[in-house]
Amino acid sequence: MQNVQQPKKRKLSDEIIAEDEDYQRDPEHPRNLIPEICRLLYSQEAMTGSGGAISMRRNDKIYVAPSGVQKERLQPEDMFVINDDGDTLKLPLNGKICRMSQCTPLFLTIYRLRGSECVIHSHSKRAVLATIISSGNEFRISDLQMIKGIYKRTENRNYRFGEEVVIPIIENTPTDPELQENLVKAMENYPDTCCVLIRRHGLYIWGTTWQQAKLMYECYEYLFDIAIQLKQLGMN
Amino acid sequence: MQNVQQPKKRKLSDEIIAEDEDYQRDPEHPRNLIPEICRLLYSQEAMTGSGGAISMRRNDKIYVAPSGVQKERLQPEDMFVINDDGDTLKLPLNGKICRMSQCTPLFLTIYRLRGSECVIHSHSKRAVLATIISSGNEFRISDLQMIKGIYKRTENRNYRFGEEVVIPIIENTPTDPELQENLVKAMENYPDTCCVLIRRHGLYIWGTTWQQAKLMYECYEYLFDIAIQLKQLGMN
Amino acid sequence: MQNVQQPKKRKLSDEIIAEDEDYQRDPEHPRNLIPEICRLLYSQEAMTGSGGAISMRRNDKIYVAPSGVQKERLQPEDMFVINDDGDTLKLPLNGKICRMSQCTPLFLTIYRLRGSECVIHSHSKRAVLATIISSGNEFRISDLQMIKGIYKRTENRNYRFGEEVVIPIIENTPTDPELQENLVKAMENYPDTCCVLIRRHGLYIWGTTWQQAKLMYECYEYLFDIAIQLKQLGMN
Amino acid sequence: MQNVQQPKKRKLSDEIIAEDEDYQRDPEHPRNLIPEICRLLYSQEAMTGSGGAISMRRNDKIYVAPSGVQKERLQPEDMFVINDDGDTLKLPLNGKICRMSQCTPLFLTIYRLRGSECVIHSHSKRAVLATIISSGNEFRISDLQMIKGIYKRTENRNYRFGEEVVIPIIENTPTDPELQENLVKAMENYPDTCCVLIRRHGLYIWGTTWQQAKLMYECYEYLFDIAIQLKQLGMN
Ligand SMILES: [Zn+2]
Ligand SMILES: [Zn+2]
Ligand SMILES: [Zn+2]
Ligand SMILES: [Zn+2]
Repeated sequence: MQNVQQPKKRKLSDEIIAEDEDYQRDPEHPRNLIPEICRLLYSQEAMTGSGGAISMRRNDKIYVAPSGVQKERLQPEDMFVINDDGDTLKLPLNGKICRMSQCTPLFLTIYRLRGSECVIHSHSKRAVLATIISSGNEFRISDLQMIKGIYKRTENRNYRFGEEVVIPIIENTPTDPELQENLVKAMENYPDTCCVLIRRHGLYIWGTTWQQAKLMYECYEYLFDIAIQLKQLGMN
Repeated sequence: MQNVQQPKKRKLSDEIIAEDEDYQRDPEHPRNLIPEICRLLYSQEAMTGSGGAISMRRNDKIYVAPSGVQKERLQPEDMFVINDDGDTLKLPLNGKICRMSQCTPLFLTIYRLRGSECVIHSHSKRAVLATIISSGNEFRISDLQMIKGIYKRTENRNYRFGEEVVIPIIENTPTDPELQENLVKAMENYPDTCCVLIRRHGLYIWGTTWQQAKLMYECYEYLFDIAIQLKQLGMN
Repeated sequence: MQNVQQPKKRKLSDEIIAEDEDYQRDPEHPRNLIPEICRLLYSQEAMTGSGGAISMRRNDKIYVAPSGVQKERLQPEDMFVINDDGDTLKLPLNGKICRMSQCTPLFLTIYRLRGSECVIHSHSKRAVLATIISSGNEFRISDLQMIKGIYKRTENRNYRFGEEVVIPIIENTPTDPELQENLVKAMENYPDTCCVLIRRHGLYIWGTTWQQAKLMYECYEYLFDIAIQLKQLGMN
Repeated sequence: MQNVQQPKKRKLSDEIIAEDEDYQRDPEHPRNLIPEICRLLYSQEAMTGSGGAISMRRNDKIYVAPSGVQKERLQPEDMFVINDDGDTLKLPLNGKICRMSQCTPLFLTIYRLRGSECVIHSHSKRAVLATIISSGNEFRISDLQMIKGIYKRTENRNYRFGEEVVIPIIENTPTDPELQENLVKAMENYPDTCCVLIRRHGLYIWGTTWQQAKLMYECYEYLFDIAIQLKQLGMN
């Protein structure tokens, strides 16, 4: 979590400044939503110890949380703003010295491959346990009402009760950027999925809107939790 | 969760508008209570991922939460108001485009069969696990003080410590409206029950007042939790 | 939870009224502390479903929470005030029709036998599970730092790390007042204890001050939780 | 928890008074941070029953929470201020009669040996269970992303994914000051560690800054929790 993601260059136009001032009037601006959802995930112990990050897109700007900080204390002014190429458009407004989330290359990849507007990366303990109780490279679950909350991309609809949700698990790497290659492969091999699990590390979940990403995050967490509890009960 | 429940017709009288304005002065108005209890259940992870819904009756108006939305963000203005026939009396006051909860036909059935004033539908993980650890079509529990919080309808009193609470479990169906037939049968076959479990899906709980429905919801959840923990401990 | 505890008589003097008005200026007045601690225990799911109650003494007045209500919604004005004989000194100030906690005779017994100033009765799931995993009529635990938070009455000091805490378990009865005889016996046979467990029901905990009662409640809960988790892990 | 830590002497200079008044303007002053983090740990049931304490250093002043009190109710004015020798510089500002945390000698030892600015002592149930499931005198864990949040002191960097975190476990003693000798030995024998576990008691965690101490506390807790859950699942 200590690597430095250097901003490549810096562009500050009047347009950017004006657009950005919106966030004080708009509670659903990424600058407000990212800290709010981080606090929520922190309270679930899925974003403690500075682990995890959230990114949201708004038009051609991508907002990314800083790295290595207490996620429950994030402020709207702490966000980095970048473009699709990863160029820094705005540094944190408060002049704090910090680094962009190390996950940024993965966020950009997901935006590019799926046209999402929100990506959540967390070190959720349920996700980690789900990768350990799954012997192979997939977490599979079915026959639970809550899978109806998961979007099945290739059919442009949500899963049905009788269907099986299959989530690819990729192996962890020494640093987050090295995950990229296997993340791309997993997304190509599992065109339906909105989630990739990383063994003994956590997950990436994305959605067309921030609402969809957050709701699916909750559904996936629910499914992992049921799977873990059934395993504890010796059932499935 | 994506089905559309179309309003059949729309009646807006002065009387309705006037009555409805009460909610800003009355914290126990259904428009205020439904969001409040949804937030509570969300915090218990029993209403995450947009799953579940609550309905309350007040005189001849029935209030129903919208479908597919983040239940912890519901506002008083987001409710649908319908009558006993399911006719829409009022759409959400804020002009938001959303759908009435898909559970609405089941809410109406419960109101009709039991004369309740509040129905809670949740995807509580404890309820789901209770349906999986119960081999047959019933969840049975006894010898716990908290069963004294459950109403025994045919005797118009609460259960006694020595008695057994029996909750019917019906099988899940592809969509919520299809649950109707089996829900009705379960309510007929178990005239005492104030709860029906749906296998791998969740539960419906109702009460004569919203207070009774909420208190019984808490008692049932308590009983499921104890049953699950005893199973994990290899005891009963 | 539905029995009626009728007030025997009613005394309202100027002195009582004056003293009682204090509570609006004193956050540690029983009228404020009882609702506050009830909300805390509710949030731990130890006071849901209207189960449990708290009583505090202040000089010659005993404050008791009402019965059968949502404990997290208690207001300072909802308390009954009684004397050591159980005579009602004041009904709830708000004119609400409700009943005094059914546990009141047990509260009075504990006040009489131990000279306490606060008694907590909860249906804590950990307490219930502790009574089920304990085969006999005692819950025993030792070798945990947190037992140093428990008061050992006959020696007028707290337990030491190497000592064993022994908590008597009495069998549950159809109604709370019937518990009285066995509660008294347990308190006589276990003069050190500040807690009595009731099989498949919950516990009573008391302290010389409200702070001591609350702190010991937390210590006992901690000990039960560790015992249950060790049992789940197959250890002790 | 009842031992008395007597202040040796008392120095009150204008300088101290002035510096101390800062805390009302600075939310990150130790007088504000210690109560805030205590409330957080209390809400996780890691600081209930008056157990545990936090200390922070600011320049040449060391702030220590009082002993035997409800940690979630601490106020900024409740802190003791001492120097490196343990001399009391300031008593609680509110004139309350209370005692400095019994852990104070251990806090001072850690400050001296490691040059830390914050030490957290908690009776975390996860820490206690981690000491019970570990047969020897070490808790070992590896292959989890969250170990990257732990500082490896001798190499002045954080742990890498492939490395193993080893935490020494010392045996508990009748009183906290008696832990000192074994704490020092453990810190000498494990120069990398920022955490010492105490069997059936809890842990001490320290950091160069309060942020580092808090973030590492969260990482260690995460690792203990995963280890315990894997043990419950019969895996590792
Ligand atoms: Zn990560
Ligand atoms: Zn449903
Ligand atoms: Zn009771
Ligand atoms: Zn300690």
